[in-house]
Amino acid sequence: MNKQNDLEARRHSLAHLLAAAVLNLYPEAKLAIGPAIDTGFYYDFDLPKTISDKDLPRIEQEMKKLLPTWHDFRRQELTPEQARNIYRDNPYKLELIEELTATGQVLTTYESGPMEHAFIDLCAGGHIDDLATIPPDSFKLERVAGAYWRGDEKNKMLIRIYGLAFADKQELEQFISHRAEAEKRDHRKLGKELDLFTFSDLVGSGLPLFTPKGTLMRNLIMDKINTLQSRFGYEQVTIPHITKKDLYETSGHWEKFKDDLFRVTGMSETEFVMKPMNCPHHTQIYAGKMRSYKELPIRFAETTMVYRDEQAGELLGLARVRSITQDDGHVFCTFDQIENEIGNIITVIKEFYSTLGMFREGNYWVSLSVRDSKKLTDYLGEEKIWDQAEKILENAARHAKLDFKRVEGEAAFYGPKLDFMFKDSLGRERQLATAQLDFVMPERFDLTYVGPDGKEERPVMIHRAIAGSLERFMAIMIEHFAGAFPFWLSPIQVKIIPIGDKHSDYAKEIAAQLREKNVRIELDENNDTLGKKIRTAKMQKVPYLFVLGDKEMTDKKITVEDRDSGQSTQMTLAEFLDKIETED
Amino acid sequence: MNKQNDLEARRHSLAHLLAAAVLNLYPEAKLAIGPAIDTGFYYDFDLPKTISDKDLPRIEQEMKKLLPTWHDFRRQELTPEQARNIYRDNPYKLELIEELTATGQVLTTYESGPMEHAFIDLCAGGHIDDLATIPPDSFKLERVAGAYWRGDEKNKMLIRIYGLAFADKQELEQFISHRAEAEKRDHRKLGKELDLFTFSDLVGSGLPLFTPKGTLMRNLIMDKINTLQSRFGYEQVTIPHITKKDLYETSGHWEKFKDDLFRVTGMSETEFVMKPMNCPHHTQIYAGKMRSYKELPIRFAETTMVYRDEQAGELLGLARVRSITQDDGHVFCTFDQIENEIGNIITVIKEFYSTLGMFREGNYWVSLSVRDSKKLTDYLGEEKIWDQAEKILENAARHAKLDFKRVEGEAAFYGPKLDFMFKDSLGRERQLATAQLDFVMPERFDLTYVGPDGKEERPVMIHRAIAGSLERFMAIMIEHFAGAFPFWLSPIQVKIIPIGDKHSDYAKEIAAQLREKNVRIELDENNDTLGKKIRTAKMQKVPYLFVLGDKEMTDKKITVEDRDSGQSTQMTLAEFLDKIETED
Repeated sequence: MNKQNDLEARRHSLAHLLAAAVLNLYPEAKLAIGPAIDTGFYYDFDLPKTISDKDLPRIEQEMKKLLPTWHDFRRQELTPEQARNIYRDNPYKLELIEELTATGQVLTTYESGPMEHAFIDLCAGGHIDDLATIPPDSFKLERVAGAYWRGDEKNKMLIRIYGLAFADKQELEQFISHRAEAEKRDHRKLGKELDLFTFSDLVGSGLPLFTPKGTLMRNLIMDKINTLQSRFGYEQVTIPHITKKDLYETSGHWEKFKDDLFRVTGMSETEFVMKPMNCPHHTQIYAGKMRSYKELPIRFAETTMVYRDEQAGELLGLARVRSITQDDGHVFCTFDQIENEIGNIITVIKEFYSTLGMFREGNYWVSLSVRDSKKLTDYLGEEKIWDQAEKILENAARHAKLDFKRVEGEAAFYGPKLDFMFKDSLGRERQLATAQLDFVMPERFDLTYVGPDGKEERPVMIHRAIAGSLERFMAIMIEHFAGAFPFWLSPIQVKIIPIGDKHSDYAKEIAAQLREKNVRIELDENNDTLGKKIRTAKMQKVPYLFVLGDKEMTDKKITVEDRDSGQSTQMTLAEFLDKIETED
Repeated sequence: MNKQNDLEARRHSLAHLLAAAVLNLYPEAKLAIGPAIDTGFYYDFDLPKTISDKDLPRIEQEMKKLLPTWHDFRRQELTPEQARNIYRDNPYKLELIEELTATGQVLTTYESGPMEHAFIDLCAGGHIDDLATIPPDSFKLERVAGAYWRGDEKNKMLIRIYGLAFADKQELEQFISHRAEAEKRDHRKLGKELDLFTFSDLVGSGLPLFTPKGTLMRNLIMDKINTLQSRFGYEQVTIPHITKKDLYETSGHWEKFKDDLFRVTGMSETEFVMKPMNCPHHTQIYAGKMRSYKELPIRFAETTMVYRDEQAGELLGLARVRSITQDDGHVFCTFDQIENEIGNIITVIKEFYSTLGMFREGNYWVSLSVRDSKKLTDYLGEEKIWDQAEKILENAARHAKLDFKRVEGEAAFYGPKLDFMFKDSLGRERQLATAQLDFVMPERFDLTYVGPDGKEERPVMIHRAIAGSLERFMAIMIEHFAGAFPFWLSPIQVKIIPIGDKHSDYAKEIAAQLREKNVRIELDENNDTLGKKIRTAKMQKVPYLFVLGDKEMTDKKITVEDRDSGQSTQMTLAEFLDKIETED
């Protein structure tokens, strides 16, 4: 039995133990069901009186009292009659018995605990061999919740008790502290505190509205990417967010995704769709005029929204939205130019994630996503071209000294790709950047360029994203940094607090000089107490806090509190400007 | 009879003359109809043989021969029998006779020309008193076209002859040269030549795709506006392009415009609409948190696309599109802050249009658009507030020394406004910028702020646009400047042409230095002849052209050809950089 199954068996076994403990304390309790779940187990009870989280320590204590006396689980087969007789007073078990019988399943009970006061439950099995081997500090009752019998609100509301269970104490504690940390970093909570985005019931779920600070962050991300890639010849283009379906009929997306698209209808006879991707539109700018080999590579970049009709239940803050801003880019080039272009894209990805401190050995890896070697015919395009293309991507990855792994079967049907995975500060792996070759779209749109010999040739297309979806990227960054963004990404970089009214002019003078140098500052001129102003600044997680009073005014200096080190240092403004010059 | 009617009567009369001339030259011709139109007149004929523009001089000559002999138009009433008899061989006139008879109208003919060979036509009247007073050089046959009888393609194709007719020779010539100039400046033609945008049949009409140069121009416009307004505290926000209809039900737009909106449907149960404006979305960012009077004014700006379902026939290049990029802005402020905010908006408009040379006495005017004093109840909101608000706008206009006119009945139902009108280089008046007060939307969305006394107050909303729709603005600018944009708005500012291969390195060095100074350059490294390179540069209407050869290399200078003056001047690069420093 592998560890995961072992853990599941433990959790399931602990559900039995929980039920036994509850029965000892509340003999009138009726048992419903109690499965293992991802983080432990639960059991649903019909109790004569409600209980709350306050009652959990007593129940947990009872479990731990029983634990050393429980060892094996003893199986027994029952006839339906026997089962119905045993559970004649439990409508929940009776319902289960009828269902199991109707589908022809064997009815079994499992007995555990010492023979003289054993606990018996209707159960299909899957337990640990010896329950007493479970460390008592590896599990913990978590909370009480209401749960309708079988999840149906027409049924009776039962009482569910959740328990956490892991391999040992350390794993349990790690999970608890991890979860607490994840809750503290939840981007929905921090997004509100940092005033980055908001949702409106009138606009609809999955449709975020970005405040000035959130928009500034979006712009900082886009500007950073554009700055990094401009030296590689990327040019901005602009496309409308709708199109006739003809575009997707030609691209082939219509056939595959037509039911997933947002349809747009107006008064005119033409039906439109909202774009779920930008590549087909970009091909039409390429195709807008004759192209010569001398112009290639042509590199279009655009940060623009695409739309996907996610189900309301799947939406989650910025992490899963219906209006998705992509930092999209498409390169049209010759086959010979692929390696250089991929190299440039890798450089941009490397530099971009380095400014976030995320491009570090062991913290990222790259999937060289190639064909499934057993299903080579599933992929469109010539096999020879594919072989070469996979080789080119591998060379580029090797040349850039990437930590990459060849992953079979992960290629798109239209070409192989490089997918960049990064670990966030909680160890969660996130796929962010990507560079994909595409031999199919140029063919479908009949894209051409005039070669040196005057003949028409077919370009290759490269799709690339650096941040991916800006919404998802922001959600990940907010949680990764817990809102304490690097200097370059901070909507406010310096918060200036004058101690009293008489320091206000000096604070304004400092503020003006920083603005002049394009430092993003906020000057707190509220009538609040100094304590409240400092607390507000700390909640905003501003990288540098200047508190300015008599001493600073007299010395013509500033006192700088550094968010990350917690240190306060006196310096001149010129020294501060020098210091931030070298920061990302 | 006023001049316009007089002109219409002349044009109609000239249509008779045209018909008479054609009958003289082609006696077998059957006449159909011949009305006056905006620029002159036409007449449709059923001719036994086709004619072309080459035949027009002969027909025009015949008209001018008849002209002095034609004076009055002599009316005669006919019975249907008489009419049918006269036109027994003309199916077109017979059809008209039956229609007029069926609707009970009196049938009349008009006879003109000398009695002995008079021309008679079935006609309802509206002629000039004496045709011979028309100056022979005030009209001109224009072109021959095919036209189905009654515009129905199931009918026979007739031959239509168009004529231009104006008050005198000067007006005629002015119209012709004006039109030629307008055609030369047509933004659809220039947009292609300058490679600014393209359309795709697959994407759909009215949905422009902006190329790198067109996108650059869009960004230059946006950046200029943002730079000008940033000192007044405008902050960028970002909204999705769709919303639940609930937003417009609350704003009141749903009731008014629901049939004009693009509806969006997907798999989920929620129906969305594409935004036709941004204000309701922006209110939701305002409403996303509690606001205090200390934060006001709050100023949101966003350049974003809205969508309007125009009929295909109404679309026209960039001038009328389905995806419209608005440079939108909304201010939320107290009533007392209105005048200052409007003053700031006027300043931005003034400065922006000054950089285009368009904000000049006599070239612009401002409509102070107020209520119709006879229908005061048509407007929402308190009368006292309206009186004050109109006064505030007037004060702001006066204070800014605007050339303004009070125009009654032009206010929106939700508040008075200032609309800015500019004359383009062909004298066409264009409404571009606007600043509008709105007392209604804050009410409908129940927007509030906490006042100094802790009570909730209602803010006022100001809508403002500087360029208006970027597409329409670009169309107007392309035509106004005939593609020769001011320096700041030129996608390429300097074109560098090395005369021969040996000057290539020097050209690259100059190019690098200009790029370093953020000058937008294009280096022509094609193998074309010098002549062709210069012709290409001229077609691109680049403000400065550097042609670099031996002399420039030796002297370490550049020869600068100035697009606007046509002058070539030798100077150092430093001198050139100084020169452009002062240009807009």
